[in-house]
This record gives sequence, structure tokens and C-alpha cells, in this order.
Amino acid sequence: MKKSLGGRPLLFPTPVLVIGTYDADGKPNVAAVSWGGICSSDPPCVAISLRRVTHTYANIVAQKAFTVNLPSHDQVKVADYFGLISGKSVDKLAKAKMTPVKSTLVAAPYVKEFPLVLECRLRHTVEIGLHVQFIGEILDVKADEAVLNPNGLPDIKKVNPLIFDPATHSYFNVGMFVADAFSVGESLR
Amino acid sequence: MKKSLGGRPLLFPTPVLVIGTYDADGKPNVAAVSWGGICSSDPPCVAISLRRVTHTYANIVAQKAFTVNLPSHDQVKVADYFGLISGKSVDKLAKAKMTPVKSTLVAAPYVKEFPLVLECRLRHTVEIGLHVQFIGEILDVKADEAVLNPNGLPDIKKVNPLIFDPATHSYFNVGMFVADAFSVGESLR
Repeated sequence: MKKSLGGRPLLFPTPVLVIGTYDADGKPNVAAVSWGGICSSDPPCVAISLRRVTHTYANIVAQKAFTVNLPSHDQVKVADYFGLISGKSVDKLAKAKMTPVKSTLVAAPYVKEFPLVLECRLRHTVEIGLHVQFIGEILDVKADEAVLNPNGLPDIKKVNPLIFDPATHSYFNVGMFVADAFSVGESLR
Repeated sequence: MKKSLGGRPLLFPTPVLVIGTYDADGKPNVAAVSWGGICSSDPPCVAISLRRVTHTYANIVAQKAFTVNLPSHDQVKVADYFGLISGKSVDKLAKAKMTPVKSTLVAAPYVKEFPLVLECRLRHTVEIGLHVQFIGEILDVKADEAVLNPNGLPDIKKVNPLIFDPATHSYFNVGMFVADAFSVGESLR
């Protein structure tokens, strides 16, 4: 018998994504969000949700572009700070001594110090409720060489991304390899 | 200098979600997906993406409802099997000896043996490309008593959910507590 907990935004895991944008004057901003995820393979797309009151919301509406940056485990203090306050009156990047890099593909900056970034062009805007969902086409994935595996793809343990736990409002990291996908279940076929 | 990897659907972490649906005849089906996540706090909503060819896609279109079930680490074989084949010709639940339970809130079944489930009513359908995104309002979250923390909310380490790594097509589990959110970054303010 399962216990009913009511309707609430709860899922494990949710990611820790730092969204990079420019405002109308070209000033870079970053904000941390956990409501998001991949939503399409072809074209490759990622969805993120923002409240209308945020600086990032206004920036995406204006520029029709954003980056999704994945902080590493040891950058948790900076990632959390990027979710604590609004960039309307503070230069969060300067305060955290992080470096915005202008994307050559979209009108948005990514963060040099984060190991993995997605450069996205806005494709869809979905009005849901408190949050508006922005769906961006991933035009490029950029990664630090140090986090690549021998096949040239990002190694999840080297990126060492953060996980947000919406039940206790805390961060976790990625644990151990469990099994190969599209393989371990073959025995049940 | 970051290395360009091209546009691809890559993000860490992505979840392992088992979607429960009924077909037009009321036959239960389950399918594993990793393209999804929370997309709104109020109303609480979750987004999942499906290809049009899938049985689950047709079921959600017909019933306008679905459940999102979170398998635990030790249920990886079943979760992977639910993503390997279509439910059009096979009763995956029976084959895996798992039990569908009819939701009293929506026209969809959840899986008794999975520790955490969300019961969702379809609110939005977004045509993206290969995938169609379904946004469901989370009418209730149901959890096994054994996975609750002292505050009555699901404990991420007790649920022990799976993580999908889209770079290597493998599963990981959740690791260690890193820090409290909306707190550890205060020192940078």
C-alpha cells in the first residue's frame, strides 16, 4: 500500500543546470535551474523552465538563445550561488570570479570554468503556469578535453555533475556504474 | 579551450522513468524513457518525450493520462527490459512479473513494485521533431512507506533511483550528499 503525498514537483534525479544568457544590452547573466531535461533526439533539444519574474526569462525572450552549463561537484558553491539571487542588480559571474565566453553560434554566453556546455537556439515556448518552458535546439555540445572518454564523449564520472534533490533541497553527486543500458534487460525478453 | 562535439542530446544526469498507460481496450503497458523532467512547480508538472511510433504515445493520446514510475537500483533489469521492446505485441508487465495498479485519479496504471510513482493528467502536447513532448500535471505522488524520511517525504537514497548516461548508454546510481541547496552558496553573496 503506497502512501499518498499529494501533487508536488518531485522526481529523482533532477539536474543542476546553469543557464547562460545576455540581456538586451549584451550583459551576461547566469542562473541555476533544476526543472529541465533532454526532450528530443532529432533535432537534439533540451527543455528548461523559468519563472516569468526572472532576469533569465526576460533574456531568453529577448535573445531567443541560451546555454546550458553543467557545473562539476567541486563547483557546488558557485552553482548554488547562481540560484540564490537575481542577476537584475548583481553581476553574479564577476562576484563568483567565473568567465563568460561569447558563443559563436547563438546570442548567449557559456561559462568557461564549467566542464560541459550546450549552446541552444530557442525553438518553442510553452506557457505552463508559474513556470514557462523554453525548448532549445542544441546546436553544439562543448566539453573540456579533460572530461572526455577514449571515444571522445564526456565521461559522466569525470564531469562529476551535481544532482538536485527536490525533496530535501540538497545536492548529491553521481554514484557507481550499475549496468549497461539496452542490454541488462535482455534476459527477460 | 573546449572541444566541439556537435549538436547531440546529451545531459547529465537524465532520469530513468517508467511510463504507465492503458491502451484503448484498457490493457496496461509500461515503457522506460529518459527524456523528461519536472517542468513546473505550480501546477506541479512533469514532461516526458515519446516517439510517435511507440505504443505509449498512442495510449497517452487516447487516454490523456499517464503515470511516471521510478524504479530502484535493484530493479535495473526490469527497467531496462521495459525500454527494450514495444508493448504492442507483448505484455511486458506479465513477462517481468510486475503488478499494474489502476490509479483512482487518472486513466493510467502505476507499477506496485516501484517505490515512487506520479499520477499525471495530460495538460500540453508539444510537437518537437522525432519526439513529442507530453506535459502532465502531477495530481498525486505515491511512495512506499519504506522509502520515506522522518519528514514524510521520499528519501533519495532509499528510493535509490537509476540515472541514465546518454553518452555511454549505461546506468548509474545516486552517490553521496554534497551540500545543502539555497545555502552553500550564501558565502559568495
